[in-house]
Amino acid sequence: MDIRSEVKKMKEDSPKMAALSLETRNQALLAVAEALQQQKEKIFEANQKDLEAAAESGLPQSVQKRLKFDAHKLADVISGIKELVKLPDPLSQVQLSRQLDDHLNLYRVTCPIGVIGIIFEARPDALVQISSLCIKSGNCAVLKGGRETAATNKVLFGIIYQTVTDCGLPSGCLLQAEQHNEIDELLSCHDCVDLLIPRGSNQFVQYIMNHTKIPVMGHADGVCHTYVDEDYDMEKALPVLVDAKTQYTAACNATETLLVHRRIAEEFLPKAEAALRAAGVSLRGTLEASQYIDCEIMEEAEFHTEYLDMVLSVKLVDSLEEAVRHINTYGSHHTDCILTENPEHAETFMQLVDSAGVYQNCSTRFADGFRYGFGAEVGISTGKIHARGPVGLEGLVTYKYKLYGQGQIVADYAEGRKSFHFQELDRG
Amino acid sequence: MDIRSEVKKMKEDSPKMAALSLETRNQALLAVAEALQQQKEKIFEANQKDLEAAAESGLPQSVQKRLKFDAHKLADVISGIKELVKLPDPLSQVQLSRQLDDHLNLYRVTCPIGVIGIIFEARPDALVQISSLCIKSGNCAVLKGGRETAATNKVLFGIIYQTVTDCGLPSGCLLQAEQHNEIDELLSCHDCVDLLIPRGSNQFVQYIMNHTKIPVMGHADGVCHTYVDEDYDMEKALPVLVDAKTQYTAACNATETLLVHRRIAEEFLPKAEAALRAAGVSLRGTLEASQYIDCEIMEEAEFHTEYLDMVLSVKLVDSLEEAVRHINTYGSHHTDCILTENPEHAETFMQLVDSAGVYQNCSTRFADGFRYGFGAEVGISTGKIHARGPVGLEGLVTYKYKLYGQGQIVADYAEGRKSFHFQELDRG
Repeated sequence: MDIRSEVKKMKEDSPKMAALSLETRNQALLAVAEALQQQKEKIFEANQKDLEAAAESGLPQSVQKRLKFDAHKLADVISGIKELVKLPDPLSQVQLSRQLDDHLNLYRVTCPIGVIGIIFEARPDALVQISSLCIKSGNCAVLKGGRETAATNKVLFGIIYQTVTDCGLPSGCLLQAEQHNEIDELLSCHDCVDLLIPRGSNQFVQYIMNHTKIPVMGHADGVCHTYVDEDYDMEKALPVLVDAKTQYTAACNATETLLVHRRIAEEFLPKAEAALRAAGVSLRGTLEASQYIDCEIMEEAEFHTEYLDMVLSVKLVDSLEEAVRHINTYGSHHTDCILTENPEHAETFMQLVDSAGVYQNCSTRFADGFRYGFGAEVGISTGKIHARGPVGLEGLVTYKYKLYGQGQIVADYAEGRKSFHFQELDRG
Repeated sequence: MDIRSEVKKMKEDSPKMAALSLETRNQALLAVAEALQQQKEKIFEANQKDLEAAAESGLPQSVQKRLKFDAHKLADVISGIKELVKLPDPLSQVQLSRQLDDHLNLYRVTCPIGVIGIIFEARPDALVQISSLCIKSGNCAVLKGGRETAATNKVLFGIIYQTVTDCGLPSGCLLQAEQHNEIDELLSCHDCVDLLIPRGSNQFVQYIMNHTKIPVMGHADGVCHTYVDEDYDMEKALPVLVDAKTQYTAACNATETLLVHRRIAEEFLPKAEAALRAAGVSLRGTLEASQYIDCEIMEEAEFHTEYLDMVLSVKLVDSLEEAVRHINTYGSHHTDCILTENPEHAETFMQLVDSAGVYQNCSTRFADGFRYGFGAEVGISTGKIHARGPVGLEGLVTYKYKLYGQGQIVADYAEGRKSFHFQELDRG
């Protein structure tokens, strides 16, 4: 059967998945954790094959590292599943309950989105993480992993699928796409896939966003900024800047651009240069910045660049407002920080910067579902429609309006024989 | 200046619009209500021109009716604005406040989406309604109305724009597009328009959805169903069905298809036929339905049809499950109703039907922001991402995460020197 037919069938089955009790969903998750533990050797063997193939094909070390699924990763995903089981049910939450008129009661109740397509590169742990989140939230999921971990993905998917269907989940709850050409087929399924979540490189996510009519949740790039205000504190600024740039350069929330108020450039920049160089960072900057630091000269248009590497762009600005304008123009609306001791400047920055995360005096690297206390994370969204920023379970649910009547008709209200009295009801 | 340049400028100005106080936004709205009242003759004159042109060009009566902007419509939009002023501020609402660690506080706070593009056909009152909603929610708006009411729209926009900028709103807060070719230009502005809200015919909305990368909120069609369950009550069923079909046939929430459980077809259908015919409805149905009623025979595929007219499709089903399957397959996920006295059947229907509104024993015509007590309505969304169903102010806002630190770095947490303690803070 081709992917389109399978996904269409999944869509038809999705209301059954949505109707499962919390108990059934949680039991399935616990059984998955158990099964992964029991069949770990099979997983590690498959992963070994993927790693060997990757080494042979000459993939960069940094990518090879992300392919690895070892005892440490296994322990992580298992503990992730157990945490997920403890989280409250994202479904059947009553968000509004209102009596419109006598015996005409309206409820807004959360429900799954339906069918989620997940397309990810590398990182086989993403397969476990995201399918667990879909199960907890009652969504059906089509999973397409990267070819570099095809063997690992196949084994992981097999274990999860077998386990959850044994636990009573419908046979159409999860589906694995294994062929690369199936991605384009999946992207064309806008009539049966409700949401796509891509996880991978800028180019990869951009391709997906540009080739589908299905709503996409995620982010293509993370061009994050740290702005050093004139009222900054050197003791906080240096470690925060170094952490934001270097703590994990491959992450989307790593700082790519340093903006510095002109008035403090002479004092701050040489110290920043020393601290950054000591951490292994090389600098690129405007002609003006090069008066204070040793850096490669860059053009204005290059401030769009996401390095994901030990490189930092540097620019001086005249004012807080200029910093904001730069960030809103060249940034990716992900996460941006102001280093300042002036609370008014911080508030202005937070108000005017149009990003999912706006920070004062801390590393942009904090932008993460775990660090926000959300438990597992589906991804980080730079879109403003639906979920924004780090997205946990609530990004996988929508709601429906339920209206219970006893024969009411609109004509009575339109023609003045009856009127609404709108009264909030007790929840539950 | 072309639309793209103007919208780009608007995007740059949008943080200023977002930063206005509630008082400023409300004062601007009250001033608009006042100005519309004072300049009503100018509006009526312009509308008279539009109506004359429409009559000359031979537009259908039903469309001509929707072009009218008279004293009655004026009173409606003015009272709508006054109601809107009374609603609580949708901005700066704290949705989450959490201490991640000592002196590291996270807040999730609502903010405007940014720049909204609104493209609507006919109905000049929509211009006033939607621009008021955008002002209340701190969004900038690009408005493109139908050419049939170009004169009315121009006058209305002129009054609103002059008034709000006099009240201190930024000059880039509202923009009117007047040329038809500007629609395609607007659709291509995915880098500076955050959300599109189209209001118009199925074909019109479908065109917009298919020709832009900007997220679209709304609905193309409304193929709503009323399903008569075996445990129905004749006294409720007949008036509800007649209301759902006939109370306003041009509305998206009018019922287009009647599904009837086979077991009660013989008893129910002849009475339904009599009631519907008395109301002026003509029937189309499956071959099987024609055994009970006098109807034009229709094909299965035609059940996708949205008549927006005094016509109803009729089909018999074997079970509640078959009714659900039909609705999920042929419906538009808008609003669907079950007529039943059996609470379990109602719950199953509501659980399994994948629509924004699921009703028991009342007319599908209730699906409307005013009838839900939301005040003004931006539109009705059949999408599942972001707002669903009738959408009021909350569909025009998103949120950002604000994180206040005192120099915290991620390395301390990643390397175990510090740990998060996640503690909810008092709101405010």
